[in-house]
Amino acid sequence: MIDRLIAKIEETQNPTVVGLDPRLSFVPQYIKEEAYSNYGKTPKAAAKAFLEFNKKIIDGIYDIVPAVKPQVAMYEQYGAEGMQAYIDTLQYAKEKGLMVIGDIKRSDITSTAEAYADGHIGKVKVEEESYTVYQQDCITLNPYLGSDSIEPYIGHCKNYDKGLFILVKTSNPNSGEIQDLDVGGEKLYERVGKMVDQWGQSLIGKRGYSAIGAVVGATHPQQAEKLRGIMPKTYFLVPGYGAQGATAKDLKGYFNEDGLGAIINSSRGIIAAHQKQPYQSKFSEKEFYLAAREAALDMKKDLQQIFR
Amino acid sequence: MIDRLIAKIEETQNPTVVGLDPRLSFVPQYIKEEAYSNYGKTPKAAAKAFLEFNKKIIDGIYDIVPAVKPQVAMYEQYGAEGMQAYIDTLQYAKEKGLMVIGDIKRSDITSTAEAYADGHIGKVKVEEESYTVYQQDCITLNPYLGSDSIEPYIGHCKNYDKGLFILVKTSNPNSGEIQDLDVGGEKLYERVGKMVDQWGQSLIGKRGYSAIGAVVGATHPQQAEKLRGIMPKTYFLVPGYGAQGATAKDLKGYFNEDGLGAIINSSRGIIAAHQKQPYQSKFSEKEFYLAAREAALDMKKDLQQIFR
Repeated sequence: MIDRLIAKIEETQNPTVVGLDPRLSFVPQYIKEEAYSNYGKTPKAAAKAFLEFNKKIIDGIYDIVPAVKPQVAMYEQYGAEGMQAYIDTLQYAKEKGLMVIGDIKRSDITSTAEAYADGHIGKVKVEEESYTVYQQDCITLNPYLGSDSIEPYIGHCKNYDKGLFILVKTSNPNSGEIQDLDVGGEKLYERVGKMVDQWGQSLIGKRGYSAIGAVVGATHPQQAEKLRGIMPKTYFLVPGYGAQGATAKDLKGYFNEDGLGAIINSSRGIIAAHQKQPYQSKFSEKEFYLAAREAALDMKKDLQQIFR
Repeated sequence: MIDRLIAKIEETQNPTVVGLDPRLSFVPQYIKEEAYSNYGKTPKAAAKAFLEFNKKIIDGIYDIVPAVKPQVAMYEQYGAEGMQAYIDTLQYAKEKGLMVIGDIKRSDITSTAEAYADGHIGKVKVEEESYTVYQQDCITLNPYLGSDSIEPYIGHCKNYDKGLFILVKTSNPNSGEIQDLDVGGEKLYERVGKMVDQWGQSLIGKRGYSAIGAVVGATHPQQAEKLRGIMPKTYFLVPGYGAQGATAKDLKGYFNEDGLGAIINSSRGIIAAHQKQPYQSKFSEKEFYLAAREAALDMKKDLQQIFR
């Protein structure tokens, strides 16, 4: 998985992942109106509008970014129809050649972890038939439950060429309440970083990186630099750029000397670009996917400063 | 929420929650065959079989236990159809008067946490229409991200009379890797316990317990006793009884002097009772829900030892 991700990053010369976290307020009126006229103002209409919106966004960016990261909460809230829109979004992104990171942040144990692993990065069996339900190359996980909550997924990463990004240091303001606690001379997030590094040792790819990555928020550049040292072979998935306040100059320490090691997420900065300047003046609402494309290209340019 | 849960526990004289974590291997052949003949050996068939299985189990136990706890992973793995079976299970359990604990263990921040909160314990809006998508009285959450990952749910608990059970000390063997770390003279799970106690202060019900509860595994009686002292007003949701090895005599310390304060989960010990002795000899496969009933009554009797 990680070699495929790195190949896509190099091909596009762009360490960006586009967060597909739609909200109805982002979706152009013409898409919503069509959905409402077909399905009423229902969760099903919201789900259908999200799928239509996502497809256009993907059409706008699939050749200039390596990956998308749909956030399952945005779909799950609308029930089964929402989950179908999530599943259809994954499939469309895969058809367009994108790497897909499912932002699911699941955490569970034993048979439950196995069920999540089968569904999200493996295959589910119904008697002798087996099915790929969620077409994801990697997923995010929460480590609070310990190794036996992660191991079922690691097995699947080996068997199905998949990857994980495990929450280490998250981008939110209160992330330190638990993650920054001192656990015997180091912070908890550092300890978790070492665990992630350890879990990833058996999954190092040809380029020297592991398929077991870490989520490290863009809002914590100092902590990221420490983590970069602790876990040199771990790819970082970095949320918090743009809307959450981090800028390119904060991000240098997230990368290794080889220019690899991190992929930066932007969600509403790209998918809702049509609602803010300078894009709003340049594109009509119907051209929202072109606004997204330009915002993604601007982000690429911004990130290139890091490597000068 | 917590007063409603306590009322149900007192009405049934039974601090048991039945975990609705179906697997195809638990489902009687006649249910599976009907689903396969209608839908083929597909995820949809698995979902339909789960719903049919759950309804019968609920019919068998709704008058003798206060609550059920469906584990979403078991449904989510089968995609949108699986989620529909989850949603339909929640609805059926509510119709039968049961309290419903959605075991979702979600963890996320800001707008994402809000989306989960709206969907799972609030209402989702589509323009001026609003919908209850998941009919749950409470849900489980993971605390690793800190207060701002929990607060959106606390607001919803107030507005919609709902509750939470937050992971504090989980039942799995490796739970200590992170949860038992020493964080300045106390264990991380104790620190998290104090945070949960704090989060719950504004939601204390008439009986003196908070709507913000804690998940404390049955496999850790000593840690539970410590936590009982730290968080006297917090209800404990206790997994790990039965299949994971804990017995009633391990559970005394999970309860307060008033005989309240804990609700004990059993999943396969009840829902798959028909596959093991002594129930297997007494009930035919078609009577699986009667086996579940008898296992639930046996569990009730077993737990009553605690209060002697």
